Amino acid sequence: MTKWVYSFGDGKAEGGAAMGALLGGKGANLAEMSSLGLPVPPGFTITTEVCTHFYGNGQSYPGGMKKAVEEALAVIEKGVGAKFGDAENPLLVSVRSGARASMPGMMDTVLNLGLNDETVEGLAARSGDERFAFDSYRRFIQMYGDVVLGVEHHNFEDILEIHKEERDVSLDTDLGAEDLRALVEEYKKSVARELGEPFPQDPKEQLWGAIAAVFGSWMTPRAVTYRRLHDIPAEWGTAVNVQAMVFGNMGDDCATGVAFTRDPSTGENAFYGEYLVNAQGEDVVAGIRTPQHLTLRGKEAHQSPLPAMEEVMPKVFGELEDVRSTLEAHYKDMQDIEFTVQKGRLYMLQTRAGKRTTQAALRIAVAMQQDGLIDKRTAIARVDPTGLDQLLHPTLDPVAERQIIATGLPASPGAASGAVYFSADAVEAAAASGEKVILVRSETSPEDIHGMHAAEGILTTRGGMTSHAAVVARGMGRPCVVGAGELIVDGGAGTMTVGNVTVKAGETITLDGSAGEVILGAVPTVQPELSDDFQTVMEWADDIRRLGVHANADTPEDARTAREFGAEGIGLCRTEHMFFESSRIVAMREMILAEDEAGRRAALDKLLPMQRDDFAELFRIMKGLPVTIRLLDPPLNEFLPTGEAEIADVAKAAGVDVGHVRNRVAQLHELNPMLGHRGCRLAISYPEVCEMQARAMLEAALIAAEKTGEPVQLEIMVPLIAGREELDILKAVIDRVADEVAAEKGAKPPYIVGTMIELPRAALRAGEIAEVAEFFSFGTNDLTQTVYGLSRDDAASFIPTYERKGIFASDPFASIDEDGVGELVALAVERGRKTRPDLKLGICGEHGGDPASVDFCHRVGLDYVSCSPFRVPIARLAAAQAVVAGES
Amino acid sequence: MTKWVYSFGDGKAEGGAAMGALLGGKGANLAEMSSLGLPVPPGFTITTEVCTHFYGNGQSYPGGMKKAVEEALAVIEKGVGAKFGDAENPLLVSVRSGARASMPGMMDTVLNLGLNDETVEGLAARSGDERFAFDSYRRFIQMYGDVVLGVEHHNFEDILEIHKEERDVSLDTDLGAEDLRALVEEYKKSVARELGEPFPQDPKEQLWGAIAAVFGSWMTPRAVTYRRLHDIPAEWGTAVNVQAMVFGNMGDDCATGVAFTRDPSTGENAFYGEYLVNAQGEDVVAGIRTPQHLTLRGKEAHQSPLPAMEEVMPKVFGELEDVRSTLEAHYKDMQDIEFTVQKGRLYMLQTRAGKRTTQAALRIAVAMQQDGLIDKRTAIARVDPTGLDQLLHPTLDPVAERQIIATGLPASPGAASGAVYFSADAVEAAAASGEKVILVRSETSPEDIHGMHAAEGILTTRGGMTSHAAVVARGMGRPCVVGAGELIVDGGAGTMTVGNVTVKAGETITLDGSAGEVILGAVPTVQPELSDDFQTVMEWADDIRRLGVHANADTPEDARTAREFGAEGIGLCRTEHMFFESSRIVAMREMILAEDEAGRRAALDKLLPMQRDDFAELFRIMKGLPVTIRLLDPPLNEFLPTGEAEIADVAKAAGVDVGHVRNRVAQLHELNPMLGHRGCRLAISYPEVCEMQARAMLEAALIAAEKTGEPVQLEIMVPLIAGREELDILKAVIDRVADEVAAEKGAKPPYIVGTMIELPRAALRAGEIAEVAEFFSFGTNDLTQTVYGLSRDDAASFIPTYERKGIFASDPFASIDEDGVGELVALAVERGRKTRPDLKLGICGEHGGDPASVDFCHRVGLDYVSCSPFRVPIARLAAAQAVVAGES
Repeated sequence: MTKWVYSFGDGKAEGGAAMGALLGGKGANLAEMSSLGLPVPPGFTITTEVCTHFYGNGQSYPGGMKKAVEEALAVIEKGVGAKFGDAENPLLVSVRSGARASMPGMMDTVLNLGLNDETVEGLAARSGDERFAFDSYRRFIQMYGDVVLGVEHHNFEDILEIHKEERDVSLDTDLGAEDLRALVEEYKKSVARELGEPFPQDPKEQLWGAIAAVFGSWMTPRAVTYRRLHDIPAEWGTAVNVQAMVFGNMGDDCATGVAFTRDPSTGENAFYGEYLVNAQGEDVVAGIRTPQHLTLRGKEAHQSPLPAMEEVMPKVFGELEDVRSTLEAHYKDMQDIEFTVQKGRLYMLQTRAGKRTTQAALRIAVAMQQDGLIDKRTAIARVDPTGLDQLLHPTLDPVAERQIIATGLPASPGAASGAVYFSADAVEAAAASGEKVILVRSETSPEDIHGMHAAEGILTTRGGMTSHAAVVARGMGRPCVVGAGELIVDGGAGTMTVGNVTVKAGETITLDGSAGEVILGAVPTVQPELSDDFQTVMEWADDIRRLGVHANADTPEDARTAREFGAEGIGLCRTEHMFFESSRIVAMREMILAEDEAGRRAALDKLLPMQRDDFAELFRIMKGLPVTIRLLDPPLNEFLPTGEAEIADVAKAAGVDVGHVRNRVAQLHELNPMLGHRGCRLAISYPEVCEMQARAMLEAALIAAEKTGEPVQLEIMVPLIAGREELDILKAVIDRVADEVAAEKGAKPPYIVGTMIELPRAALRAGEIAEVAEFFSFGTNDLTQTVYGLSRDDAASFIPTYERKGIFASDPFASIDEDGVGELVALAVERGRKTRPDLKLGICGEHGGDPASVDFCHRVGLDYVSCSPFRVPIARLAAAQAVVAGES
Repeated sequence: MTKWVYSFGDGKAEGGAAMGALLGGKGANLAEMSSLGLPVPPGFTITTEVCTHFYGNGQSYPGGMKKAVEEALAVIEKGVGAKFGDAENPLLVSVRSGARASMPGMMDTVLNLGLNDETVEGLAARSGDERFAFDSYRRFIQMYGDVVLGVEHHNFEDILEIHKEERDVSLDTDLGAEDLRALVEEYKKSVARELGEPFPQDPKEQLWGAIAAVFGSWMTPRAVTYRRLHDIPAEWGTAVNVQAMVFGNMGDDCATGVAFTRDPSTGENAFYGEYLVNAQGEDVVAGIRTPQHLTLRGKEAHQSPLPAMEEVMPKVFGELEDVRSTLEAHYKDMQDIEFTVQKGRLYMLQTRAGKRTTQAALRIAVAMQQDGLIDKRTAIARVDPTGLDQLLHPTLDPVAERQIIATGLPASPGAASGAVYFSADAVEAAAASGEKVILVRSETSPEDIHGMHAAEGILTTRGGMTSHAAVVARGMGRPCVVGAGELIVDGGAGTMTVGNVTVKAGETITLDGSAGEVILGAVPTVQPELSDDFQTVMEWADDIRRLGVHANADTPEDARTAREFGAEGIGLCRTEHMFFESSRIVAMREMILAEDEAGRRAALDKLLPMQRDDFAELFRIMKGLPVTIRLLDPPLNEFLPTGEAEIADVAKAAGVDVGHVRNRVAQLHELNPMLGHRGCRLAISYPEVCEMQARAMLEAALIAAEKTGEPVQLEIMVPLIAGREELDILKAVIDRVADEVAAEKGAKPPYIVGTMIELPRAALRAGEIAEVAEFFSFGTNDLTQTVYGLSRDDAASFIPTYERKGIFASDPFASIDEDGVGELVALAVERGRKTRPDLKLGICGEHGGDPASVDFCHRVGLDYVSCSPFRVPIARLAAAQAVVAGES
């Protein structure tokens, strides 16, 4: 017969930590601690299988379960020496939900269950504290009324407020026993009024009501939505934990506290925690009283005037230290524990893996590996890759005050302060004069690159996680906040306004790119330090991972950064970024304004040597590692000026009529440039552009190979193809240029030709495309845009709404949408490899630096990911974790 | 043993018309005519299987094939009474390719093969016409040199020109026998110079060279590309036809001509054709001499001064009339034939189904069915649905002169002349004063609707086949040319310019929307007439088709047109078009400018009765047929003004600050509005908009049902969903409003809720979406945009290049891309039906009116197509043809 209920307590338990699926996380760990002989108040767990049975059988319990609960309750009574519902010596219990994965939207906790008009008097008598007893009863009615009976808690709060006003007191604690006795009566009346029946006095009825409420909460819309978004099967179900109450608030020999077995902010192997004498668990968190340090060391380090537990309760503290050692040795991880001391006796209420800073995570992982507690694979799985961002960029001093005036998307991590300016030119001028500056724009375009480079940080009012500003800022390692839509920027007036705050050009703000915050004035920052632990973990990760990690790098500076962070190649070099330098934009515009092919060729001849030098330098830095260079991608109008004054300048420089420039700008204007004349479509229309770029790459490869003596691995990448026809045509152009170069130079550089897969059609036609392409690089930024029909530049206005309403589990530009975009990637991988088994597969969208997406890339069988240089360490670690996750 | 060669001629043949796959179209029909006892010059066909063998076996011929050719050649010799290569009485042959499907890029024809320095003298002697003989030889060297030997034909033309200059003559026919003899020598020298070897004198070598050239032409890049784009398998191969030459240019008892067995422009059952005495086939087409009519009737009808064949060669004409009867009775279709008369004897050289106007096609199909020649299924398959456009719209008088100044895409058929104006307001004002007007814009937006309505035709310089202008014009039945990029429109100055032609506001142009032509001045138009034949064919089509045909209709006028053309429901009502009327746009803008939900609700309350009236009227017109209404779809900024003056007007009307309007316009501006805050995203952000629209629909349904006594079939359609989460939320809103309406009105109108599938992600997640949606309507305009990453508004600038380079077989906005978009549609159909077997499936993109796309919709299993009202007849016919095609 199935066992529906598992008891724990008194140094033994029917369950254990390995039974998380059956008992939920909380129940499994309570059982485990009990088995370890730790002092856990006795209790029992109703299994998740009961939940599954409940929903599979018209919301009824399995046969024998009720009896098992009664029996388990009797075991608690025996252990505690009290009786549930007994007027003299009543047993009180807590009832908590506990699923396999922590889940919001579920019923949390009911405390003090078992109290009624009779037992409250018994509790008062036995504790000798009437106030304590009635305060417990009052809290129980409110908690039970709210979460079990559905009486909204404002009903109770209103009563409490009125009562406090009548008594002319401001704090709950100023109310005496008589007040609380009166409040209990009011609360019960309120429940009766709302429900049409009295508050249940029968403890058993209370217990079954609470159990039913836990199971019922498994199917609330909020829980259902959360599960769907996080791929948690409904069949998992939740468990219910029923446990004897212990009280930390029965006098000065009582206490309650939370602790970490190591320092969660530094990772130091030192006991760390806080406690309060004569208090309940929630008081430590509530912040009404200042918590005291557990250890003398902690007290001294924080210069606290309040005594440490080590001093006040040395015996109990000693027991707690033993618990700490036991748990770390047993769980082999830093634990976050909750305890209560009731009349000098220690009780453990919870243990779980503790949250920690990234710095601490690295230190703990390395230390535990060195102490032989864990192996390297376990060690690297313990560090959250996303957190490495903190270590690579300055962060705001956590204790400094912040006057946040607006919030946007956290587009590029780090923090910076500076004077705001509203154009790239103004930023560059101010920076040249030694000022620290922040570039503020409604959105950025390639024209702003020099300003972004000169700025300490970038702020935009539009755009999403893969908008131009976000992508470029991440590449440069500059902090960046995008889509801060509350801000109204008036570039002409040189102001930005939010509510009644106006910031003028030259005034200082601070950006927290990791939090997406815009802060008034300067906030001190903390510079990062890369510890040896970081290096150690990175080395382990490199040994374990299968995925290669390349970087998206457009400039020699990017390439050097990428190498420093361990990139194994350049997965994406965006050639267009080379055209925006002032010396080059002139020739580029000449090309665009040319009337015919001959005119375009003349301008391209000027660009050729510049591009060749750029590429040769990249090859030199990458020393024989693969370098993937993409043909010109953005629509040509991005290179043309927009304002009248600039148009006049360009006309003058190009020696043409202003009207001609204006017409060309108008002609090239597009309603939806993202879906316009760009990518390979440019090269199809103007093959001479492709010819020039291919020639620059191939000649540069010969030059670099000769200079360095290392072979160059050139991969020429054609963007935005929708089918093999486009690639056929452009590969023929490239191959022809290669033959010409070989004929002229007497040597043919090795190269391969591949394509981005960034349109749904390209993914669908991957089988045919692979007949021509020697590699695929998934451009998941554009693929996300087209699969979702979602503009990265415009989506910021409604993505927050979508996240709030549970439509997006996460921003699909930040973390790959496995269900949609992912299916197309998987399909393209399958079809591409079927045609060409040795097809090289990578990703160069911004997802390449997102841990969840890296895990997906590993599972779907890509060969490498490519991300911005500063995210290379994240990708390296995430790639290793993907291997470990795949083994478990 | 496989038979590689099939002979024909002399009243018998080894092959026949049914063997098109083996013999190619031309060879099969020659054999068929021969079997029918018609006078076909003897010849033979080398089968397509030889071609397949040729490419499967290192370009070698199968064993026995050479011998079979020799034997078949001997049969010709015997039939003709001449010998191949004989100096006295030489046999000359033609060599032609002939694949299953007619295919450009293949070798076409070599005539007069068998001539050399010896046989030419024999030909001269036997024909008694030296000039004829050497002209034939000269032409042969040029043709053979060009298509078999690869000597470019300009070599020959240059020689001819020089020779004519030396002789001071202007026409080829002014050259005498001696001139041609000299030319032959020059031609041979040129070949020897180009090839390094002499022109082949051995007729057998000539023959095998020509055969090899035909097979070789099967694999030219152009042929390969054409096959890929038209899904013609390479395995089909081509056949080779070798046939004895006959000459229509050996004297006045010789002639050559082409004829149709019925009148190809009216369909009248009258013999129709032209001939030339003493001429070669190509002369009839070349237009150097004026061809004469075949029949007296034709001569009289065209008031030709030249005698008819019926008069000149009554005996041969009689034979030709017999041939006509035989062929029609046999092929049961109107035939297009070629013949030659050599010395009073008739020879048939070709027969095939004749091309015809749509009017003729209808008349012939109906007449042949009534005569019992064909059944209804065959009859409807004979009419090209696209051609029906000609019958529903005015067309330009075909004989009128046209001064074409620009060409764009043929976005909406028909023709119209009028004075140009450059704004919707100017157009409306001019039209109100009785002027006929053409609206010219760079592109249109919903703001221009009133101008489009007032205009006779619409011209834009941007945009593609599904741009706003194109879609709306088709819906209204107005001729429209879009994407005429050569034109430069200066709305401010009130001019449009192309080259040195400038058209000012008020000056007249003519648009040919079927050809995409912009013509200076007024061109007379021909009004369409719908014949009884049209009605008959439509009725037959309705009996045969499985697909339902609905219409995209936004207004009562659209709905009435749709009903007249036989639409069985409204498949798409775009509610936003109702918001642009001047009385409504004010309330709409008030809604957009509102600061909060309360403000929006106040404005929506004003819109509610207007929408309700619109919907009630639509339901009334559609009398119980299904009406699918889409929730608001376009981004809100489409409703806001753009110019400063208009902004001031709106601010005044709305009673708000100009700055507020300007800020809101700026805030709502999007870089890629197609991928922006639109579709269901609006309803997710502002559920009150969805509430108002649902209420208007549901209340209208109750009102209409009460008025008409017919049940209303309301289908509420949610646009642009990417997954089921959005539909979950909005269906809940709609269901709630329905409950409210039911409670208020005491009756709940029946309705279903479904969605557009217009994003790749929606197609991929169709299985889940069908858990909520009761119908899918494929929005293939947007699906094409997102699958291809191609903006309908911007693609016109490069789609022509893509078509020219063979990347697009056809504009994917005009005809559905089966390989990409189609795969996603098929996948969504499969996944959707798996979840919900009775899911109703339709298409409401512009593809719903394209015959090839309708065929796809039939094959993929949709329930209906929906298209603009004027295309409903096309869809009805295409749907029936899809059934017939599926049966064969």
